[in-house]
Amino acid sequence: MKEKPIRVDYRTDKKTKPIIEDIEFGREFTDHMFVMDYSFAHGWHDPRIIPYQPLTVDPAAMIFHYGQSVFEGMKAYLSPKGDALLFRPQKNIERLNRSNQRLCIPEIDEKFVLKAIKQLVSLEKEWIPTKQGTSLYIRPFIISTEPYLGVASSQQYQFIVILSPVGSYYKEGVNPVEILVENEYVRAVVGGTGEAKTGGNYASSLKAQEIAERNGYAQVLWLDAVEKKYIEEVGSMNVFFKINGEIITPALTGSILPGVTRDSAIKLLKHWGFKVTESKITIKELIEAFHNGILEEAFGTGTAAVISPIGSLVWNDEKITINQGKTGELSKRLYDTITDIQYGKTKDPFGWSEYVDKALIK
Amino acid sequence: MKEKPIRVDYRTDKKTKPIIEDIEFGREFTDHMFVMDYSFAHGWHDPRIIPYQPLTVDPAAMIFHYGQSVFEGMKAYLSPKGDALLFRPQKNIERLNRSNQRLCIPEIDEKFVLKAIKQLVSLEKEWIPTKQGTSLYIRPFIISTEPYLGVASSQQYQFIVILSPVGSYYKEGVNPVEILVENEYVRAVVGGTGEAKTGGNYASSLKAQEIAERNGYAQVLWLDAVEKKYIEEVGSMNVFFKINGEIITPALTGSILPGVTRDSAIKLLKHWGFKVTESKITIKELIEAFHNGILEEAFGTGTAAVISPIGSLVWNDEKITINQGKTGELSKRLYDTITDIQYGKTKDPFGWSEYVDKALIK
Repeated sequence: MKEKPIRVDYRTDKKTKPIIEDIEFGREFTDHMFVMDYSFAHGWHDPRIIPYQPLTVDPAAMIFHYGQSVFEGMKAYLSPKGDALLFRPQKNIERLNRSNQRLCIPEIDEKFVLKAIKQLVSLEKEWIPTKQGTSLYIRPFIISTEPYLGVASSQQYQFIVILSPVGSYYKEGVNPVEILVENEYVRAVVGGTGEAKTGGNYASSLKAQEIAERNGYAQVLWLDAVEKKYIEEVGSMNVFFKINGEIITPALTGSILPGVTRDSAIKLLKHWGFKVTESKITIKELIEAFHNGILEEAFGTGTAAVISPIGSLVWNDEKITINQGKTGELSKRLYDTITDIQYGKTKDPFGWSEYVDKALIK
Repeated sequence: MKEKPIRVDYRTDKKTKPIIEDIEFGREFTDHMFVMDYSFAHGWHDPRIIPYQPLTVDPAAMIFHYGQSVFEGMKAYLSPKGDALLFRPQKNIERLNRSNQRLCIPEIDEKFVLKAIKQLVSLEKEWIPTKQGTSLYIRPFIISTEPYLGVASSQQYQFIVILSPVGSYYKEGVNPVEILVENEYVRAVVGGTGEAKTGGNYASSLKAQEIAERNGYAQVLWLDAVEKKYIEEVGSMNVFFKINGEIITPALTGSILPGVTRDSAIKLLKHWGFKVTESKITIKELIEAFHNGILEEAFGTGTAAVISPIGSLVWNDEKITINQGKTGELSKRLYDTITDIQYGKTKDPFGWSEYVDKALIK
């Protein structure tokens, strides 16, 4: 797409900002949203920032029938100096395009979209909450809007970005959770869409999650769909284990989402001198490591929680408690370092943080 | 839900009906639609028939992010006497509820929904095209509408039915197609959502379908996700083979959609005295049967095409041509019999056809 200026239609009746302590993740949205249309004839066109408002969509629009959609999740953080920061946003936008490829959705111009996100966040800067651990969640997504019931790729799409102020994920400090190893339902399979961030993966995961929650577990640990023995993800996060001083995380073999926090954790751990192995690991190997006394830590990684320590794991009739159910030293160090970088509170050796406003001036 | 009367808001500015020869499947819609809402507090409520119109949906509505949706496809046919007929509609509505269970969507009242569909079709009866092979396609679907970005089941939904007049699937007679056996991408896996009619399954299938079409094939033949050797479906249809006088179709082992036309074909074939086996069948066994000269026919079954004969199959470097690329005798007999029952042109030994209007009078 040609680099066009983004049309801005300002909202006059600004919303009252919520009290950050009271808000639940993903329930409140800011005053404006970014929208851009795609048609086969015109490509991606008419980029605009408009007041947050309902979409008007034909009931035959393909998104309602054949699930052709992708999304991303990222956050804007406020630094101690009051600058708005993004964390490795280009990684999310690149992944959005990989998801687009898998779902047969036309690719977006990555540089332009990053610029658009920055412009929107800049406009809504006063929506970024200031309290420790809070942030402004950014949700870019693409939906197929052509009104057509044939099973085919849509010829019309909308790319939309909405923003949602979010409180601290850990209101009472980082808290290890109890996880159920899921034996019946699967999240994804090689040859399917597990690598892409598409709605269908999440719809498919709800059933197991509901059953687990009903039985008192926070999340499920997903095993591979083929042999039901290799560990894949935990809930909607990537998963890491510290075994005998070394770090292991499932390799990206085609059914696992390549998380930005996963990549950041690997880079940090290597930077700190840890041996990090990306490979297949079975649930049996993990349980054995526990019994041998060498399973030292386990944690999930994701944009929402950053690091989510696993306190215990239940597999069939066995329950193992990791690091006495407490947050491990390394989990804590990763959480602190990544969040300090995200909030601009520490040196950023990798250049992961990006200024929202300064980049606009360029 | 309590049996409430359905509120009707009639359209005054009726659309011009399209010329049936010109219309493409799923592009034109009738004057009215059926809508019903769900909220956690009120259950399914406010059933209404209203003018066909765009939906107004919050950009944070869960359907746009986490793909929680299900749908059905069925048709209304006009009998020679001018009666509107449905074909085994309760089977579709039962399946919709099974899809709901898998996707954590609240179940609908099946009797009420059948009544609502009949009332809508009856109101739109003049939209049922009269030409041979044409029909009025019925698309019931449910979308998750709660504006919430947490990964969880939605607490708000809309159930909607839209109608679309469709031309004959086979404008120039039943035509066997060339099929590519898909080795890389998979449609579904046991433990996933393959048994449910949910958007994600279709989104996931687009890539393989596009590649196949680009290479000149009509559809792909899906193999199982685990061993990549068992035959599952063809395109978005179930698949049948006639081998040495007997019929075999893949068993419903958890990743295959239980098609209504599939079930009808099995019942008819048994009624005619054929041995029908529902079991696993590998692509290798199929190719062997071909080389042994006993693969007599192959065809897909589905609501759109009813019976879609497979003329040839390409697997890796090998191409086999079935029944000399012509429509088999049994495929033809099934097609003729099922469509004759659907259009009320022959005896209906199974009681599959239902009157739209007469049922309303009950």
